Amino acid sequence: MASIGDPEYKASSTPVPASGSGGADYFKFDVILRFLLFAASLAAVLVMVTGNQTEYLPLPIPAKFRYSPAFVYFVAAFSVSGLYSIITTLVSLSAIRKPNLKTKLLLQLIFWDAVMLGILASATGTAGSMAYLGLKGNKHTNWNKICNIYDKFCRHVGVSVAVGLFGSIVVLLLIWVSAYSIHSRVPK
Amino acid sequence: MASIGDPEYKASSTPVPASGSGGADYFKFDVILRFLLFAASLAAVLVMVTGNQTEYLPLPIPAKFRYSPAFVYFVAAFSVSGLYSIITTLVSLSAIRKPNLKTKLLLQLIFWDAVMLGILASATGTAGSMAYLGLKGNKHTNWNKICNIYDKFCRHVGVSVAVGLFGSIVVLLLIWVSAYSIHSRVPK
Repeated sequence: MASIGDPEYKASSTPVPASGSGGADYFKFDVILRFLLFAASLAAVLVMVTGNQTEYLPLPIPAKFRYSPAFVYFVAAFSVSGLYSIITTLVSLSAIRKPNLKTKLLLQLIFWDAVMLGILASATGTAGSMAYLGLKGNKHTNWNKICNIYDKFCRHVGVSVAVGLFGSIVVLLLIWVSAYSIHSRVPK
Repeated sequence: MASIGDPEYKASSTPVPASGSGGADYFKFDVILRFLLFAASLAAVLVMVTGNQTEYLPLPIPAKFRYSPAFVYFVAAFSVSGLYSIITTLVSLSAIRKPNLKTKLLLQLIFWDAVMLGILASATGTAGSMAYLGLKGNKHTNWNKICNIYDKFCRHVGVSVAVGLFGSIVVLLLIWVSAYSIHSRVPK
């Protein structure tokens, strides 16, 4: 991967500023982070979806992510981010060889990454608050905790929310990398 | 405010690119959006905090935002964003007269705005999910709705979450404006 910087200088037909070769390295970070986002999205969705648990009290009462709109939103948001990360990884990979498109592409990536950050952070907050309510309950409203009964379900939800938080932080880092990358192209 | 573009060219000691005068206008947008963020934060916190309601069923049972960790987090997050918007408005205003600092400042604003977006979006999601639960309840977990009893409290929470969503979108726009502003300084 160390040879990526060289063809950029030769292939470029526009005057690339002195810090232009640094841009290629940032795209490498970008691809790595997007892969992490994909892994986190996939893990968050899979762990959430496989959390179903049925308890006999004495009648069978199942707990499913589908029963809570918060968890449905969470799964939808991270499914979208998984798809988004695949598409943008391909875009980012293709840009490593086309330095002319890079600055405009970085701007578009920041735009969409910021939208994804909003969606994923709100989804993590939504699912996290429901997970906390299931764990602790709320005596003021007589909402009893359920995690003492549905232990496996709650473990899955907890892990899924933690992975979702990690995914949200990865998107934050993506915005930082893209912003720093554009910033490095401005002449001093 | 139309005269801001001119002194920049004269006062600048570094070579500003052709699109540099556009940067001043973006800072004007920036200040306006930050003021909107301040107004939204203040409104969200005030409406949430003043929602207390006591119902006699027949004993007096109050509903307060303080009883739900989700709403406490919401109030804390928007208090922080209110303070943040004041500080960054002053920073942004001071930058209008110092064009040399602008590009680095824009980068720092994107960094912190992205952090705020994550915090505010998660707070809005958290409070929103609790508001929805209070409105609809969840029969699978026997969490009964409370908004049929605490109507004023729920109205306040609903308005507060809507204003919070508006504030989150304003932060998203702030990131877009800053990113576009940095992008406009990169030579074509």
